[in-house]
Amino acid sequence: MTLGRRQKCCAALMLIVGVAWASGAQAKTAEELTVALDTIWVVLTASLVFFMNLGFALVESGFCRAKNTVNILSKNFIVFAISCLAFYLFGWGLMFGNGSPVVGLEGLFMLGGSDNSPATGDAYMGAYKSIAWTGVPLYAKFFFQLVFAGTAATIVSGAVAERIKYLSFIIFSFCLVAFVYPITGHWIWGGGWLATAGFWDFAGSTVVHSVGGWAALAGVIVLGPRLGKYAADGTVHPMPAHSMTSGVIGCFVLWLGWFGFNPGSTMASDPNAIAHVFMTTNTAAFMALLSATALNWMWDGKPDLGMSVNGCLAGLVAITAPCAFVTVNAALIIGLLAGLIVVCAVKLCDAVKIDDPVGAIPVHLFNGVFGTICVGLFAVDKITGAATGNGLFTGGGATLLIAQLQGIAAVGVYTLAASFVFLYAIKMLVGLRVSKDEEEEGLDIGEHGQVAYTGFTGSSYNA
Amino acid sequence: MTLGRRQKCCAALMLIVGVAWASGAQAKTAEELTVALDTIWVVLTASLVFFMNLGFALVESGFCRAKNTVNILSKNFIVFAISCLAFYLFGWGLMFGNGSPVVGLEGLFMLGGSDNSPATGDAYMGAYKSIAWTGVPLYAKFFFQLVFAGTAATIVSGAVAERIKYLSFIIFSFCLVAFVYPITGHWIWGGGWLATAGFWDFAGSTVVHSVGGWAALAGVIVLGPRLGKYAADGTVHPMPAHSMTSGVIGCFVLWLGWFGFNPGSTMASDPNAIAHVFMTTNTAAFMALLSATALNWMWDGKPDLGMSVNGCLAGLVAITAPCAFVTVNAALIIGLLAGLIVVCAVKLCDAVKIDDPVGAIPVHLFNGVFGTICVGLFAVDKITGAATGNGLFTGGGATLLIAQLQGIAAVGVYTLAASFVFLYAIKMLVGLRVSKDEEEEGLDIGEHGQVAYTGFTGSSYNA
Amino acid sequence: MTLGRRQKCCAALMLIVGVAWASGAQAKTAEELTVALDTIWVVLTASLVFFMNLGFALVESGFCRAKNTVNILSKNFIVFAISCLAFYLFGWGLMFGNGSPVVGLEGLFMLGGSDNSPATGDAYMGAYKSIAWTGVPLYAKFFFQLVFAGTAATIVSGAVAERIKYLSFIIFSFCLVAFVYPITGHWIWGGGWLATAGFWDFAGSTVVHSVGGWAALAGVIVLGPRLGKYAADGTVHPMPAHSMTSGVIGCFVLWLGWFGFNPGSTMASDPNAIAHVFMTTNTAAFMALLSATALNWMWDGKPDLGMSVNGCLAGLVAITAPCAFVTVNAALIIGLLAGLIVVCAVKLCDAVKIDDPVGAIPVHLFNGVFGTICVGLFAVDKITGAATGNGLFTGGGATLLIAQLQGIAAVGVYTLAASFVFLYAIKMLVGLRVSKDEEEEGLDIGEHGQVAYTGFTGSSYNA
Repeated sequence: MTLGRRQKCCAALMLIVGVAWASGAQAKTAEELTVALDTIWVVLTASLVFFMNLGFALVESGFCRAKNTVNILSKNFIVFAISCLAFYLFGWGLMFGNGSPVVGLEGLFMLGGSDNSPATGDAYMGAYKSIAWTGVPLYAKFFFQLVFAGTAATIVSGAVAERIKYLSFIIFSFCLVAFVYPITGHWIWGGGWLATAGFWDFAGSTVVHSVGGWAALAGVIVLGPRLGKYAADGTVHPMPAHSMTSGVIGCFVLWLGWFGFNPGSTMASDPNAIAHVFMTTNTAAFMALLSATALNWMWDGKPDLGMSVNGCLAGLVAITAPCAFVTVNAALIIGLLAGLIVVCAVKLCDAVKIDDPVGAIPVHLFNGVFGTICVGLFAVDKITGAATGNGLFTGGGATLLIAQLQGIAAVGVYTLAASFVFLYAIKMLVGLRVSKDEEEEGLDIGEHGQVAYTGFTGSSYNA
Repeated sequence: MTLGRRQKCCAALMLIVGVAWASGAQAKTAEELTVALDTIWVVLTASLVFFMNLGFALVESGFCRAKNTVNILSKNFIVFAISCLAFYLFGWGLMFGNGSPVVGLEGLFMLGGSDNSPATGDAYMGAYKSIAWTGVPLYAKFFFQLVFAGTAATIVSGAVAERIKYLSFIIFSFCLVAFVYPITGHWIWGGGWLATAGFWDFAGSTVVHSVGGWAALAGVIVLGPRLGKYAADGTVHPMPAHSMTSGVIGCFVLWLGWFGFNPGSTMASDPNAIAHVFMTTNTAAFMALLSATALNWMWDGKPDLGMSVNGCLAGLVAITAPCAFVTVNAALIIGLLAGLIVVCAVKLCDAVKIDDPVGAIPVHLFNGVFGTICVGLFAVDKITGAATGNGLFTGGGATLLIAQLQGIAAVGVYTLAASFVFLYAIKMLVGLRVSKDEEEEGLDIGEHGQVAYTGFTGSSYNA
Repeated sequence: MTLGRRQKCCAALMLIVGVAWASGAQAKTAEELTVALDTIWVVLTASLVFFMNLGFALVESGFCRAKNTVNILSKNFIVFAISCLAFYLFGWGLMFGNGSPVVGLEGLFMLGGSDNSPATGDAYMGAYKSIAWTGVPLYAKFFFQLVFAGTAATIVSGAVAERIKYLSFIIFSFCLVAFVYPITGHWIWGGGWLATAGFWDFAGSTVVHSVGGWAALAGVIVLGPRLGKYAADGTVHPMPAHSMTSGVIGCFVLWLGWFGFNPGSTMASDPNAIAHVFMTTNTAAFMALLSATALNWMWDGKPDLGMSVNGCLAGLVAITAPCAFVTVNAALIIGLLAGLIVVCAVKLCDAVKIDDPVGAIPVHLFNGVFGTICVGLFAVDKITGAATGNGLFTGGGATLLIAQLQGIAAVGVYTLAASFVFLYAIKMLVGLRVSKDEEEEGLDIGEHGQVAYTGFTGSSYNA
């Protein structure tokens, strides 16, 4: 049999498509494969971000005292659940619903809007157009954004630890994820006024980390320091970590989780962007770990493991906004500076009597702000596709930097204000802080009626 | 040069296919890509399920006393190894081999049957037709099913903890995975009589969790309660967890693992099903965590962290069967009820003196059964593709519910009976329970000659 | 409207390609999908390998004494950071740069060479031809290889624990990853003389594990045993693990990480190879766990959990080289033998007073060598594609075995020699070992001025 060119063309076509049926497999089309691959990427990276809840639970409980361990673990455990409820009921719609530049107004309640995901761009006809740039099913979008919302809430947990009432913390977390986080999130990722103003935050140095950090700051201010932390004569009483093992497990889990957080924010299987973001993320993390350790070593004479941990986390927070917009060598510099900033910020907080038991404010607020600024300094236009324009140090002038500063200020003002409102309301309604006796004895007994550890001194260990 | 339409057509074709050679890359065909993507999905989710072994090890050891920690960790560590051996030697073939409605009869030993995976459907010519609906290599199918089999065995570990002999537990685990789990598994996932009867269990509320739960119940009955747990006057002596940190790490690891367990059970890169199952799984988990915490808080006056953990796990177990068959709002209700059920079941077990140190029976048996029933109540036909028909509350009448109840009963009777047979045989041959002296002193010394923790009271900590 | 055949052909084409636009999604071509899928596979498995840093940190700190926990955690934490810096500055280029059979000479510094990844084979025009067989972006290649380099360095940490100075360890790690690991790596994976000589190591029994093991051996020899470990009369003083919980968490994390380490070394989404490597890897691990437990049980009378852990790790190390070259049943035998070897090697080390607190040498050196030999014994030509030829037991004669032995010897001689040079240089410049007083008191106080645990005996636990 001889085939004409036309037939050959069709035969070649069969080679690509037809073989699927030959073997009985249900081969997908290129578009179906793209959607499937993107979805798998999104849900697996979301799972890594989910796992960060464990990281926060361990860094926070490990860095605090044994007598408050059950309480801190409980807070970090239930905060994700309450965030899920809040984001499902209200947060998602306010953040991603079609609406005004200030807030989402469509599909507000329980994912109730129309939707034809995974259609993208102009083909998307639903209530959540601002996130229609990613071609995955609605539930994959939601789940990915859900674990980010949960992160913001869990950041607060560490700063207010060892003195906040369990119930009050639960209520505040609900309010934060339902009504605070999604508003500023809408401004930036929901197609709101900051997005329009040219503000860029790839994976959430501002949207997630500084929002958590501002809320943490509000919490610490309203609550005041822990009993005995700052003496009347101005000396600072160190309250040592009860388990550095917990702290280090937590940090490694967070570092791993960030490989979901940052690269996953592509929300698509773009190999160049993914590889790039892996590199910038890891580079900033290791450099910040090294620079924080070195500065702390020189400053205090010995390398404190807790500072190494917070250095690493500081680098990760700082690179979160710029990870897809800057070069690897810029990430090296960003990490180096983030490590120095966190050490100074820890000292500064103690100097002004901001009692943040785990360093959440130095890590998430200071470096969330710093990382957002870095976009304005180091951004390289379209380095992985996004048309950010260039930053101040990369030939773009101050335009981008100004937009970043504007966004930082707006988010800070709103988040602080809203947090204060909710915190004072809760304080009036149910109280915020446990009693002095309970704080002395530990919140584990007072709030939960149980202790975290038993038997570590049992007779069997003398055998 | 001008091209005719024919040439243009072929040129367009080259654009899709040909570029592969142009750049030297070995581009895959659509079918190859589908198989590759499905395989990666299966092995990565299987890895998450594998990791659940750590979750179980930590929840179980954390919830028990320090003096039995080495023993519990050892049990949870070796049980996966022995499950691997048992499933490789016997379990896989009995479960998935072509055979009768009751048991697999082909390719029984060491994956010895013929196989032409990843061919699917009618194109598949091998010994394991019941699992030929997924187009991945045989070893990927085996590994995914292996980690599920391991889960069933590890569930038993917690219930029989603090009193079972190490050797006896190893032998029982081998028997369970070699000869008990695969039989009922064949009925449901191996194309056996329950599958034919219209019984549906997407990811194993019955196949995995209730089987583990029934075996755990048999073990607890044969072993009896721990020394001192129930006083003669009927009072229950609480035996507190030795490390809530272990318990919470374990729960987060399990929750993460469930994102492999349930969505991975698609065993194919179906984006809609995957996203749907992620949502239902997470929704049931967080609602159960909240409802169990709330009920326990109201009942006992304070929120117990252990109950929050078991609530979360209860929701995950309950949604395992229906996760691909019900809506997200049904998952919300299922989770809410699962959390209430587990609190009541814990109270019930103590009331009838079933001493289950970690709550394995309330979590895996009660909620495994409950979740399986929920398919009969809430299923929506073809919501992610499977033709389950509708459930009782979704307009389908009682047909599906009756099939589910039939399956629950059949699996319960067989698993209990077979477990009793093996347990009594082991009791006669090597004994089941350690001596009273050993139980008092702790199994770490008695069974392993070592202790889990040293130096937590060392002088350096007074420095 | 009627369509001619030509038009139909084009219409069919549209069905594959065109639908992308119809729905607004940006469908990828087959080649783009291949690159995207391969990249996702590489970065996700690399993330699992990254997570192994936590595994090593916990196995090593858990198996040592509480008073050295902060120090060991610090070492395992910073060693990855310093490895990243060393590999970025020097290691990558020396290992994968185009060059002589002995060392890379192009693109040496900070990934500075030209590159047109993901082009592969002859289409690749850059400075790193030896790794151009994988079609992923340069940064994905780098990140994957980076986490492997970090593993080699972290292996040393355990062997030299409880007596090495923090600063000295950091310097040595930098030298190892910058100048030792990449040289032998170039010989094998960088297209060097051992690759040419027919030496095969799929995922690094030699490249990673035995290199770490040889360096660890050098460190132990130069440092000498811990104070009090070996009495003058030859008796061995056991120094018990401070937390078996840490040890077991670490081992499970490592086992999980190995599902990145070995299958990920395909660096491509080859479903058959991936599924095969998953099976061989898991099979060797579980068999080694069982055989080490059994031998230790018979030898010492009771099953030691630490030996089960090291047995499992031994199986994983041993299967790392041959995992893609041998059958599953060969993996079963390799695992069985690896478990026996590690038990004997632990006894041997104590007999010759090699004080390796965590068993790094028995696990990584003995079984790294053993696994590399196994390629020469059990390899099956092209079982997953690689033309290894057959091994001694599989009909290929001694050719392959001799090549393997040659490689083992060459890598051992170079790594030992180079390690000694760096260790003695560091000893002269800054000293290697802490003072006797510091070693007695614990390195946590001496090196870091902090303790790992506080409050485990606090009054709240008597409540």
